[in-house]
Amino acid sequence: MPGSICCMSKNRLRVIPLGGAGEVGRNCWVLEYGDDVLVLDMGVLFPESEMLGVDLILPDPTYLQERKAKIHGVFISHGHEDHIGALPYLLPLLDYPDVYGTKLTLGLIQPKLKEHKLLDKVDRKLIEPGGKYVAGPFTIEPFHIAHSIPDAVAFGISTPAGLVVYLTDWKFDHTPVDNWPTDVTKMAELGRRNPLLLLTDCVRAEAPGVTPSERVIGTAFDNIFAVAQGRIIVATFASNISRVQMVIDTAEAYGRKVVPAGRSMENNVRIAQELGYLRAPDGLLIRPSQMAEYNDDELVVVCTGSQGEPMAALARMANRDYPHVKIKSGDTVVVSATPIPGNETSVHKVIDNLYRLGAEVVYGSDSRIHVSGHAAQEELKMALALLRPQFVIPFHGDYRHMAIYKKLATSMGFQPDHVILAETGAIMEFSQDFGEIVGKGPGGLIYVDGTAIGGDVSNAILRDRQMLAKDGILMVVVSVDSATGKVIAGPDVVSRGFTHLRQSTDLIETTKQRVRESLNGNDDGNGTTSTMDLTYLQRKIRDIVGEHLYQQTRRRPMILPVVMEV
Amino acid sequence: MPGSICCMSKNRLRVIPLGGAGEVGRNCWVLEYGDDVLVLDMGVLFPESEMLGVDLILPDPTYLQERKAKIHGVFISHGHEDHIGALPYLLPLLDYPDVYGTKLTLGLIQPKLKEHKLLDKVDRKLIEPGGKYVAGPFTIEPFHIAHSIPDAVAFGISTPAGLVVYLTDWKFDHTPVDNWPTDVTKMAELGRRNPLLLLTDCVRAEAPGVTPSERVIGTAFDNIFAVAQGRIIVATFASNISRVQMVIDTAEAYGRKVVPAGRSMENNVRIAQELGYLRAPDGLLIRPSQMAEYNDDELVVVCTGSQGEPMAALARMANRDYPHVKIKSGDTVVVSATPIPGNETSVHKVIDNLYRLGAEVVYGSDSRIHVSGHAAQEELKMALALLRPQFVIPFHGDYRHMAIYKKLATSMGFQPDHVILAETGAIMEFSQDFGEIVGKGPGGLIYVDGTAIGGDVSNAILRDRQMLAKDGILMVVVSVDSATGKVIAGPDVVSRGFTHLRQSTDLIETTKQRVRESLNGNDDGNGTTSTMDLTYLQRKIRDIVGEHLYQQTRRRPMILPVVMEV
Repeated sequence: MPGSICCMSKNRLRVIPLGGAGEVGRNCWVLEYGDDVLVLDMGVLFPESEMLGVDLILPDPTYLQERKAKIHGVFISHGHEDHIGALPYLLPLLDYPDVYGTKLTLGLIQPKLKEHKLLDKVDRKLIEPGGKYVAGPFTIEPFHIAHSIPDAVAFGISTPAGLVVYLTDWKFDHTPVDNWPTDVTKMAELGRRNPLLLLTDCVRAEAPGVTPSERVIGTAFDNIFAVAQGRIIVATFASNISRVQMVIDTAEAYGRKVVPAGRSMENNVRIAQELGYLRAPDGLLIRPSQMAEYNDDELVVVCTGSQGEPMAALARMANRDYPHVKIKSGDTVVVSATPIPGNETSVHKVIDNLYRLGAEVVYGSDSRIHVSGHAAQEELKMALALLRPQFVIPFHGDYRHMAIYKKLATSMGFQPDHVILAETGAIMEFSQDFGEIVGKGPGGLIYVDGTAIGGDVSNAILRDRQMLAKDGILMVVVSVDSATGKVIAGPDVVSRGFTHLRQSTDLIETTKQRVRESLNGNDDGNGTTSTMDLTYLQRKIRDIVGEHLYQQTRRRPMILPVVMEV
Repeated sequence: MPGSICCMSKNRLRVIPLGGAGEVGRNCWVLEYGDDVLVLDMGVLFPESEMLGVDLILPDPTYLQERKAKIHGVFISHGHEDHIGALPYLLPLLDYPDVYGTKLTLGLIQPKLKEHKLLDKVDRKLIEPGGKYVAGPFTIEPFHIAHSIPDAVAFGISTPAGLVVYLTDWKFDHTPVDNWPTDVTKMAELGRRNPLLLLTDCVRAEAPGVTPSERVIGTAFDNIFAVAQGRIIVATFASNISRVQMVIDTAEAYGRKVVPAGRSMENNVRIAQELGYLRAPDGLLIRPSQMAEYNDDELVVVCTGSQGEPMAALARMANRDYPHVKIKSGDTVVVSATPIPGNETSVHKVIDNLYRLGAEVVYGSDSRIHVSGHAAQEELKMALALLRPQFVIPFHGDYRHMAIYKKLATSMGFQPDHVILAETGAIMEFSQDFGEIVGKGPGGLIYVDGTAIGGDVSNAILRDRQMLAKDGILMVVVSVDSATGKVIAGPDVVSRGFTHLRQSTDLIETTKQRVRESLNGNDDGNGTTSTMDLTYLQRKIRDIVGEHLYQQTRRRPMILPVVMEV
């Protein structure tokens, strides 16, 4: 298998998920034919709760680094973090290939590159739905799709091995808020060209039927605005420009001003408005500092924090820690989002606090104040019917979503071995009538923690953090004479996150006593240890102290013996 | 306010949630009249993810400890952990008051007391629905309620101040699996006696309508058993004896043997069967070790782990780490439970792994393989209509559930100030036409970590663990001459959970250099520090090293300077 990684078969297209397949959110695909490489999306994954202290997770760049001279470009489907967030980290490792995106997508990429001081290093190339773009032996045809951010596209990609369709983060919304539905005609046209391969999002494969149109939110907002007596606060994703548009439209109808609040909300609203993706009458949008000039029933705040993020606007409002908005009785708070799995507890805590402060809170699926931006079962099937690919790789979901997608596809007559369930790093090859996983490339997790990228935060460090988090740490420090090995100071015992040693003088004393005994055990009678093997001494201290503490407390703090030679 | 804690008004009933109100799962209520105290339930709360290393959370026993001679008994409503789990920890602090429970409830309490060697110290008194029990000035009338564990009861409690109804963890299941529905006649009778106060569970106040009967699960099981070709594995709560009963009944109908797997499942099945709460034909239940004697289509495993707990049977099966059951293609796994908020990610991981191993997995609300044991909106309203209390305290839910319950009650005509939203530790007093929160008693969180109870794991220790978990720890150890203050060994730098120092020799060297400079700064020119203030030296090292590491890495590990005088 490993041999197959470097030696690609002739006339085959190689396809590799560097992030994405098998995991929601980390999207980065490699298409490789001969000496030519195309990259699709470059997203980040947000860490799970056991990845202590990790800020972001990046796709593993090793495979691309080894081929950086061959990369013809990075094509971006839309401006969500899980599709653009890794650009500033990976582009410098790849000698800055060109980045292609639609107008709004490039608009959202720009501040990221600016923050990392990469603006003049990266060529950003505008693409438009309906256009045709050549990059090496690949011809890319972007077409519009409806999603929870405007200006999103999918790609038809002609390769020497056949036509590939990259269709992710979309739904068939026939009545979208921006009046620009998914281009089903283009999908049918691509279908007539007998695609070799479809790469498709499957994250809502569990959901029967069809995902409702974004427009239904308008009705829900209308019902809420009609009865609210005081301020209205709507929390949603900062990137969901259509949702913000509906807040603006409804606010206008009810004579309220709209206050974008939270850094990413303020930024995104500004960018989307500048680029023409958000329409608001002059004077309707105001700043938080202007709120004092209006009555409560003349205001709508649209803010970040719908996932319960502790530093975002909504959580700070719920803690009465947000400068211009202190939640009070009479406020109506609308949580216009569904918790991403893992965020439920944080979201619930924010809602609890809003109720404590006397607010009315509208949340949850019964209120019809959120719909997904992803296709449900009947839409996934319709896409397969329109595109009729030879092979299909479901991705952008967990393994169960991929497995359920496979059932949907085979129920339509697809052969099971033509639906490929690939995990991150899988190397697949395709040619007419051939499609298989042929090997496994580098697909490790690359953590971003502080400013450092990669390797630096390894699994060993995460294991240490988990151990530290569970029972804390206890250090035993002792100074020995480097010549004689005789203890000349200590042992001292210091701990953090374990127990209050001040209240446990017995435990300290017995621990020190054990250490003394263990060192005396090495004494040859003349006050010198029989060996000055520091490693051995340290291990011995660790074993003896660890056993003693477990017996006394049933806990296992990390034990760190420090022996200093003086 | 604090003064009111000790000085209760005459002729009033004092009611205090030591755990419960405002939090799902930690149930322990105090009723106090004059010199007499009654306790209702004694449950544990399971820790949230940020409470690193904490195993359990107990109700704060301080209030009861101060009144332990006055306690007439602890009445337990049913055998779930969040109602009985704190007994072995709190009873010893309270001079072992008598514990009252129904047959199955006492059966489930017994092994807990045995494990803590308390069996001969605690008098366990059997109560039966329909009976009447006198404890000091209180007369307790248990009546049967349907819940997700058999033999559950609610209490009518006559007190000198009026009638109290304690109704928690119940639903109106008119077709329960054990054919013993909630005693609505008794509820109506209590209602005719003009209750002063109702204490009621509100955890499903968000759910419209009525919670479906447990019996609907039978139909879903039937559909699954009818088509499964290989083994069937059903994961559910070990305490949900009715669910296990339905597995047994369906298995019998389809000619399969039933294998209880997982320690608590095996224990609970044994206890429930011995006490007559679980019916199984002779030979139907077999042990895991006997599975090899049967074909796959003759077996059903019923196991623990439905919450994704990493050490429970289902997760171990999904990791192919469970001795007698290795998941394989052909297995059908039924996850007959809904993830408790916070457990979603763990449950999804287990499901992903089951799919990876080729199993068919049935899960999620669409499959009708789980129903709640708690009352939904229409049932909560029906209970209010039957009981017609003067005052009501909703509990056993988060704050939002309590707030929504209040809306339900006021929509029926209840006065808002007669629906009291009390947080843990609130002291309430009631008499005819009077009901208010009058003060706040001790209601802190008591953590159990290892074998230690209380105080020992404080918020300070939890904060340390969070800090350790985020960026790890770095120690700087230096030995100084106690007479001169001169550095005679070190500085040495050791870290855990921060970064690979071996790969960061620069970082080590620059850190040591900064420490040397800082100590030299104290040098008076003769190689001695100007002051031998160890605390000052340590703080200085911490500041300098902290700033240096943040500049270099943008991370803030905990910094622990150790200065040894030699």
